[in-house]
Amino acid sequence: MAAMSTTTDYQEVLERVAEEIERTPGRGRPADYIPALAALDPRRFGMAVAEPDGTVHGVGDWRQPFSAQSITKVFTLALDLAREGDTLWEHVGREPSGNPFNSLVQLEYENGIPRNPFVNAGALVVTDRLHTRTGDAAGELLEFLRAESGNPELTFDEEVAASEAGHGDRNAALAHFMASYGNIDNPVPDLLEQYFRQCSVAASCADLALAAGFLARHGVRADGSRLLSSRQAKQVNAVMLTCGTYDAAGDFAYRVGLPGKSGVGGGIIAVVPGRCTLCVWSPGLDERGNSVAGVAALDRFTTLTGLSVF
Amino acid sequence: MAAMSTTTDYQEVLERVAEEIERTPGRGRPADYIPALAALDPRRFGMAVAEPDGTVHGVGDWRQPFSAQSITKVFTLALDLAREGDTLWEHVGREPSGNPFNSLVQLEYENGIPRNPFVNAGALVVTDRLHTRTGDAAGELLEFLRAESGNPELTFDEEVAASEAGHGDRNAALAHFMASYGNIDNPVPDLLEQYFRQCSVAASCADLALAAGFLARHGVRADGSRLLSSRQAKQVNAVMLTCGTYDAAGDFAYRVGLPGKSGVGGGIIAVVPGRCTLCVWSPGLDERGNSVAGVAALDRFTTLTGLSVF
Amino acid sequence: MAAMSTTTDYQEVLERVAEEIERTPGRGRPADYIPALAALDPRRFGMAVAEPDGTVHGVGDWRQPFSAQSITKVFTLALDLAREGDTLWEHVGREPSGNPFNSLVQLEYENGIPRNPFVNAGALVVTDRLHTRTGDAAGELLEFLRAESGNPELTFDEEVAASEAGHGDRNAALAHFMASYGNIDNPVPDLLEQYFRQCSVAASCADLALAAGFLARHGVRADGSRLLSSRQAKQVNAVMLTCGTYDAAGDFAYRVGLPGKSGVGGGIIAVVPGRCTLCVWSPGLDERGNSVAGVAALDRFTTLTGLSVF
Amino acid sequence: MAAMSTTTDYQEVLERVAEEIERTPGRGRPADYIPALAALDPRRFGMAVAEPDGTVHGVGDWRQPFSAQSITKVFTLALDLAREGDTLWEHVGREPSGNPFNSLVQLEYENGIPRNPFVNAGALVVTDRLHTRTGDAAGELLEFLRAESGNPELTFDEEVAASEAGHGDRNAALAHFMASYGNIDNPVPDLLEQYFRQCSVAASCADLALAAGFLARHGVRADGSRLLSSRQAKQVNAVMLTCGTYDAAGDFAYRVGLPGKSGVGGGIIAVVPGRCTLCVWSPGLDERGNSVAGVAALDRFTTLTGLSVF
Repeated sequence: MAAMSTTTDYQEVLERVAEEIERTPGRGRPADYIPALAALDPRRFGMAVAEPDGTVHGVGDWRQPFSAQSITKVFTLALDLAREGDTLWEHVGREPSGNPFNSLVQLEYENGIPRNPFVNAGALVVTDRLHTRTGDAAGELLEFLRAESGNPELTFDEEVAASEAGHGDRNAALAHFMASYGNIDNPVPDLLEQYFRQCSVAASCADLALAAGFLARHGVRADGSRLLSSRQAKQVNAVMLTCGTYDAAGDFAYRVGLPGKSGVGGGIIAVVPGRCTLCVWSPGLDERGNSVAGVAALDRFTTLTGLSVF
Repeated sequence: MAAMSTTTDYQEVLERVAEEIERTPGRGRPADYIPALAALDPRRFGMAVAEPDGTVHGVGDWRQPFSAQSITKVFTLALDLAREGDTLWEHVGREPSGNPFNSLVQLEYENGIPRNPFVNAGALVVTDRLHTRTGDAAGELLEFLRAESGNPELTFDEEVAASEAGHGDRNAALAHFMASYGNIDNPVPDLLEQYFRQCSVAASCADLALAAGFLARHGVRADGSRLLSSRQAKQVNAVMLTCGTYDAAGDFAYRVGLPGKSGVGGGIIAVVPGRCTLCVWSPGLDERGNSVAGVAALDRFTTLTGLSVF
Repeated sequence: MAAMSTTTDYQEVLERVAEEIERTPGRGRPADYIPALAALDPRRFGMAVAEPDGTVHGVGDWRQPFSAQSITKVFTLALDLAREGDTLWEHVGREPSGNPFNSLVQLEYENGIPRNPFVNAGALVVTDRLHTRTGDAAGELLEFLRAESGNPELTFDEEVAASEAGHGDRNAALAHFMASYGNIDNPVPDLLEQYFRQCSVAASCADLALAAGFLARHGVRADGSRLLSSRQAKQVNAVMLTCGTYDAAGDFAYRVGLPGKSGVGGGIIAVVPGRCTLCVWSPGLDERGNSVAGVAALDRFTTLTGLSVF
Repeated sequence: MAAMSTTTDYQEVLERVAEEIERTPGRGRPADYIPALAALDPRRFGMAVAEPDGTVHGVGDWRQPFSAQSITKVFTLALDLAREGDTLWEHVGREPSGNPFNSLVQLEYENGIPRNPFVNAGALVVTDRLHTRTGDAAGELLEFLRAESGNPELTFDEEVAASEAGHGDRNAALAHFMASYGNIDNPVPDLLEQYFRQCSVAASCADLALAAGFLARHGVRADGSRLLSSRQAKQVNAVMLTCGTYDAAGDFAYRVGLPGKSGVGGGIIAVVPGRCTLCVWSPGLDERGNSVAGVAALDRFTTLTGLSVF
């Protein structure tokens, strides 16, 4: 790797990326099924880089909280893996899902075992298992995010959670379907409440880049304690790279070349193992649900820095 | 990365890996549809590491030619990309394929555009396009492999090619199906001949580790000339990581954490960008078509060396 | 048609069919997910023929109530069609469903519109619509069945309904999934309660053969009033023939050649338009959920009488 | 059935149907992949009724030859069944196919056994088997059609056959795919030649209504000899009803209520067992490949006469 080497570089790179993004026309459209998200200006943009020592750099709206949505799936995965270990993989796979139209047929074909922890079905299983182990999956997540980001005000957005619950039939269908195969432990309504709360976390680019730091530190938390083994941290990164950006994982790997996880709130986190974590936010999405400016910014960042796993 | 740092280490690591593999019971079964492959002892094993400067280390049957099969898809992809550039991606995607049972339905659903260059349908498209550009796709491949490996005796195995042609109905179906969508240029029988010849290349671990060197050298060939841009080499590595091991790409990334490409002859190549290329061979396959001992050896190698992209 | 022509013939034919069935080894297995059904002896057998004038003939356990299950779907379809007319067909199709594994993917592919009223998803839609129009879909059904059969004691089996509700995750998944497309009006728990009650109707062969009489009388009820137009009655028969026996509709048409509808309780009703209606019961099922002895008995009946629509 | 009873009625009914069709706007579009079909005026219309004794009635272009296309599948099915008997059903199913998008996935899921003899894959299997038994499947078909219609000039349209062969990649894909499962006996190019010739038969409404007469005569040919047993004739009618009109079999049964088989040339044959056979032709197709005016005319015919199997 021909990576830049000093911390000041990150700030320079971020500013250069932000300038280029600013000049780019076309930003996609915010998710429209949640009113609070639909109202956002698709031209908003923020980006942060966190170094393993906790130093954080940012540009634009990098301190503006946004709806983390599916980005939280990385953290619940790590939290459950830390408690449960490898038996989790008997209940959820780690293969890419191929194609959106397959979501349900694959679940049927594969007897209620979701393809990976980042499709909705898989995240429901992970939340279900974490909830069984902790009695409060969403609370466990919130506590972890606050600790790692150092932001005690980070919280759920109850309005967003209620909006999601009001459009929850699809997730209810997935949960009942997996329950019919014995792959859900908790009552479906309880699980859905946990799931929608978890997705509603409002956090900033700075918060999420810091919170993901354990993935750049080979499993070690901000306070030096270990959440995951080095091998487990590598494995979470691998699952992010192959499955983290909906049906565009191949394209994301091709363009950005980093483990990443996106959410329909317009955020994306990415990891350069051993080097840094990134979080970018811009609410306009492409047709596959990934932030248009977010992917473009990560593409530019890796090109400018030479940081890529490949 | 906490990688070992001297070339002598590679030899030590290979020997240690070979010892551990030797003690492992269970090796899977050789591919049985090609008589020449079915007859192989599943306990045969070889492994080689090639450094960017061309130094090569090996253990076991590392100089024994075997049938490269789908490993050749990496090279035809690179050769066509080098000539054609990004228009290739209008004819083949770069997303994981999800599931074997989807192979045809996805092709139908996506109007004859295969998911990626490493499923058979995608490799047929790449070979078709390379053949249009060169008039002799298989010959172009052979010349490249000879030059990069420095082995002028590397050649096709005509018996294997004939066996494949004798079981070619499935590939003929794929080719005609894509032709019905206008995504094949050459007459199907000509294309199939090229494809089966290409798959029949017999090469050793040493040959293939050396031939893949351009992927560790960011696109530069053994003679210092450039085949691919640095960006293109990164992209080929990304496609290998997300799509290179049939329906086990997620599991391979999780366990091994390197871009890799397997073949039903029992070989697997893998790339540590900037550091080295590997090739391992053992003819016993798991149910998804990847070498059992080969995946295990790469898993051990990355664990012992700490070399992984994550 | 070379049909037998006197009422005594029906009795003779039924006795002959029963004798042949008695000699037949192998009867399949009762549905095992409902304890009350699983406990039934698969060798039990009853069969009844009802003439348009209400004369009914029977053999074996023809007066023994059994769980009607999916046979009730014919009646709720007719009751909703009678009230709603053709707009029903904007919410449910009338094409065969092809294959069990497709049930969910087809629903997804076709945007929440089930293929026909006899797959579970379609029956949920019909019940939902009847419930919206009547405020008590199951009650409406029960009243109709009692009136047509002349049996005021015909009722729901609350134990069976409770068993179904306890295994209701799959139907809950279907209902929520269609609700996500806006194709369900009532709250899902209310709909499921109606649906499970409806399926739990306990009725005998005599009851159900009489209750289906309107389909042989071109839409006219037992009391001479009209439920469906002649054209609608013909259409319900057509949907039964093409979609009435799960994934075996083609085979049932081929062997029996009559519009029919089966249930996992082991019952099957069939219609000879203008001539008679039949109901057969034997609780042992084949792998597609149809009564083994029931299909065999109808096959024999049509062969002996020459009664078939073809 | 409240059917009209004299032969003069048929002529009156046909004229009334033709008048109503004449006033109907919108006729769909001719198949565009075969130039000779694409050039036809979609307002052309002919219809014939053949009585079991060979009396034939007609209206409009009822003596105009058109391209029979998939209508021929009924005859090859009957010819092969007559020779082979029930073992045919080990190589092709008799269930509706559900959905066009499933054509290939079902074939894959069901190991190369097509769903029924009227999807292209199934017709290829039937032709293959008839060809093995006769050495000239297309010739056998032609001889049969000439004998039954009494028209010795009925022949193949070589231009149409050549057009089909020029667009034959999809059928080649199906044939090779089934061959990969061992379900095709003859070399694929030979089979395709037979298949395209067979589809290219040019025949008139009168010819085809007469040729289908054995299906109304319970298996007996025009000369009084028996082609199929009564049971087999009933079975062919059943397969036509459940599978004869592409993905619209349910809708066709619902609207028309007769066993029928359509072709992309715009023809449809239909059977009233024991009463008559019909053939209608109008080249404009709906989006599922059935003649728009043809279906409408059969719908009117059955409404006016009360002739329907339901």
